[in-house]
Parts: sequence; C-alpha cells; structure tokens
Amino acid sequence: MNVPTDKKKISIVCFSGDFDKMVAAFTIATGAAATNREVTMFFTFWGLNALKKDKGRIAMGKSILAKAFNFLMGGLNNLPLSRLNFFGASPKLMSMMMKQHNVATLPELVEAAHALDIRIVACEMAMKILEVEKSDMIEEVQDVVGVATFLNDSENSHIIFI
Amino acid sequence: MNVPTDKKKISIVCFSGDFDKMVAAFTIATGAAATNREVTMFFTFWGLNALKKDKGRIAMGKSILAKAFNFLMGGLNNLPLSRLNFFGASPKLMSMMMKQHNVATLPELVEAAHALDIRIVACEMAMKILEVEKSDMIEEVQDVVGVATFLNDSENSHIIFI
Amino acid sequence: MNVPTDKKKISIVCFSGDFDKMVAAFTIATGAAATNREVTMFFTFWGLNALKKDKGRIAMGKSILAKAFNFLMGGLNNLPLSRLNFFGASPKLMSMMMKQHNVATLPELVEAAHALDIRIVACEMAMKILEVEKSDMIEEVQDVVGVATFLNDSENSHIIFI
Repeated sequence: MNVPTDKKKISIVCFSGDFDKMVAAFTIATGAAATNREVTMFFTFWGLNALKKDKGRIAMGKSILAKAFNFLMGGLNNLPLSRLNFFGASPKLMSMMMKQHNVATLPELVEAAHALDIRIVACEMAMKILEVEKSDMIEEVQDVVGVATFLNDSENSHIIFI
Repeated sequence: MNVPTDKKKISIVCFSGDFDKMVAAFTIATGAAATNREVTMFFTFWGLNALKKDKGRIAMGKSILAKAFNFLMGGLNNLPLSRLNFFGASPKLMSMMMKQHNVATLPELVEAAHALDIRIVACEMAMKILEVEKSDMIEEVQDVVGVATFLNDSENSHIIFI
Repeated sequence: MNVPTDKKKISIVCFSGDFDKMVAAFTIATGAAATNREVTMFFTFWGLNALKKDKGRIAMGKSILAKAFNFLMGGLNNLPLSRLNFFGASPKLMSMMMKQHNVATLPELVEAAHALDIRIVACEMAMKILEVEKSDMIEEVQDVVGVATFLNDSENSHIIFI
C-alpha cells in the first residue's frame, strides 16, 4: 500500500466544496506536488460535488432526501463562491477573471492534479450519507476510504482542512 | 500537566460551529483517538455553542449584546448547516440521513469523544467576549484555557482549524 | 532568504477574510509568536481585503469585474462576520464586545503582529486575479509570493488554513 518514502507529505481534507476553496485546495495541492511533496486529497461532504461525473444538477441517490440534497448541491459547474455568490453568477465571473490573467481554471487544476500523481480519494461515510456511488464519480478518484484509513495514511503528513 | 508521550498528537480548533463542520471535527477527532492519537479539541467562538449545557436558545450573558448573540446562536440543537440550511431544517434532515445509514449522529459523536478520552477545552477569550461561563457548559469540558496555553500544549501536534 | 533556525514554525493561510476568522488568525499568530514560534501569514483571496491600505470600499483594479469585486468586498472595515452578519452591523457590535472585555480588536492585533515580527506576505496569484497591486496594500506587507514559494518556505511549518 504505502511504500515509506523520504518525501514530505501533505493531506488536504476537501470538505467545503465552495468554488473558491476548491481552487485554493487544488492550487496548494498542485503547488506542493510540483515541489516534490506527496499529496493526498480526501474529498468529503460538500467536497464530493467536485468529483461527480455529471457536472450539472442530478437527483442522485435512492432516498428522497439524498435526491433532493444532490440536486440542490449539483456538480463541479454548480460550486458556489463562499461569498458574493449572486445565485451562481460569481463563479463564472471569477473563472473569466482567472482566464484573463492566465491563471489555471478549476477543471485545468483537476487535470493537473491527476498529471502530478496527486492521490484523490473519496470519503466512505459522506458517500453513504449522500448516497453517492463510486460509479457516480470521475475516474480520477482512486479509492473510497474511511476516515480512520485516511488518518492512518496521513500519520506523517501535514493535514490541511479546507 | 502534559506528560510527554510517544503518541502522535492532533489538536483541532473548533471555530466554525456549523453542524456539518462539527460532525467533521468529531469524526476526525474520534477517528484519530481510535487509531491511538492523543487528541485535543479547542472550542472557540461559534464552536462554543456546541458545548452549551442548554441545547436550545437561551439569552446567556449579562450585557444586552451578549444576550442577543447567545440567543441568536443557540446551542447544539441550533447549529446551522454551512450551506443549504433552510432556516435550520437541513441539520435535522441530515441527522435523519445519518441515522438511516447507521452513521453516528452529533450527540453520539460527542459521547464517543468523551469515552475515547479526547481532551475537550474551551477558549477563555471567546467565553469572555460572549459572556459564557464554565457553568453554562456541559461537564465534558475539562478546562478553560487561553490561546497561548493551547498553543504551548500543541507544540508537537498537528493543528487543524475547522 | 530563510535562515534555518531551531524555532518551531507556523504558517497561516488567511483565505476567508471574514471578520471573526481574521480575529482568530491574528490571535493564533500573535499567540504563537509570543510563545517563541516563527510565524508567517499568507494572505490570499478574500484575505487580501484585510491588507488593503484603504479600509473602505474602493473600486480597485482595471477591468470592470475586478473593480466590481473589490468594491463589493471592501477593506478592513467591511469584513463580514461569517454568520449573523446583519448587513455588516455585527462586526461593529463584536468589536464593541471585544473592547468591553479588554480583548485586543482587529486593528490592534494587526499592529501586534507587526511588532512581534510576524512575516506578512500576500499571494501573487490572488492579487493578479483581483488586480490588487502591492502599492494598494498596507506597509506591513513584506512580500508578494507565489504559492510554490510559500509552500517551500513552509516545508517545516505547521500549515493552518483559515
């Protein structure tokens, strides 16, 4: 499983799933990987929305509650700005501002994370609560793990909660 | 005070006090304790609401401002969801979804934290600002400490801010 | 650049820029510096607002989008409370409550950070996106750095994301 290395390790708990915080998480992750750190991103709760295969609003899950929450939360295209969201207009404007200044946009950062061998895992418990299946998520998700496993794997890592 | 041990240590600053973030904090805390880490949870600001003895809305404090804030914030039963709160309906729905899937609910997690010897401390400064007394809080609160003391005790810990 | 020391190091990513979270960030930073830690505060995204020379609302930047965002976000005097903001009334009330109890207010904490030799740096990428120049920021900002540089400088630091 985890071959011990001398590399510094960083584990990022991607909890919030706001557009701006996901940009921050992926920027820190790719920056750390590019400077030779071993990086794990653990997606849980709202963060799971960034990993959904379908980037729009889908009533995923079996129970009515799960369907409702999944629909309301949506996917990568529906991540809200943590402030000044203006009903979802702001993330689009922010993406325009990022492109204008040649800053990598969120989908580009996800790709870069994959290219840089960042380990992307999803939280088992959150998936259970929100009734999201592994097959609902993008291929970049390498594993579904429990919190205890994640914490064990992160024993010598810096843990950053975003 | 702090007998040095070989155990890895994790300190969690519980600042936000959102329902979902408190679930995350207690899940990480109990997961870490169960995998043999020494865990401290430092509750400050909005996080204090999770520790109030009275789980509903009480106009705690002496000044009018403190009374107003404490009433509006409420206790463990009033923690809002960080998103899609729908005037407090969502944390109840979320609790239902957790029970449905046999995931420990927030009050169960608080109990588990206590059973696992997680150190629960409250922030002196936040209590002063919000005029919350130690006697207003649940018995599980072991100590009221200042930020400097908390940081000193956490010198060799991973610090996670939630 | 970074003379290696034996001091423990803490790096705080100041992302959120909410009034209450900035108070928390500066309280942790000054507490850590006072207990002999080497502290860096890296301001990015909403956090940049706390560093603007002009503490009110200014339509900073060249593009219309940057002007709009900068105006809406405002400066140190416009930081919202992360909850119960009441259109900006709450940070003022909260400051009153802090003064009442002799707790350092936010501007006092910024001063203390400077006096305690805390390194204050601003995120290059966020400045680019939001079209904020170094000359728009307070003198206490020592440097404008990229994420990779910040991460390299923080290799042996605890990283806290607020």
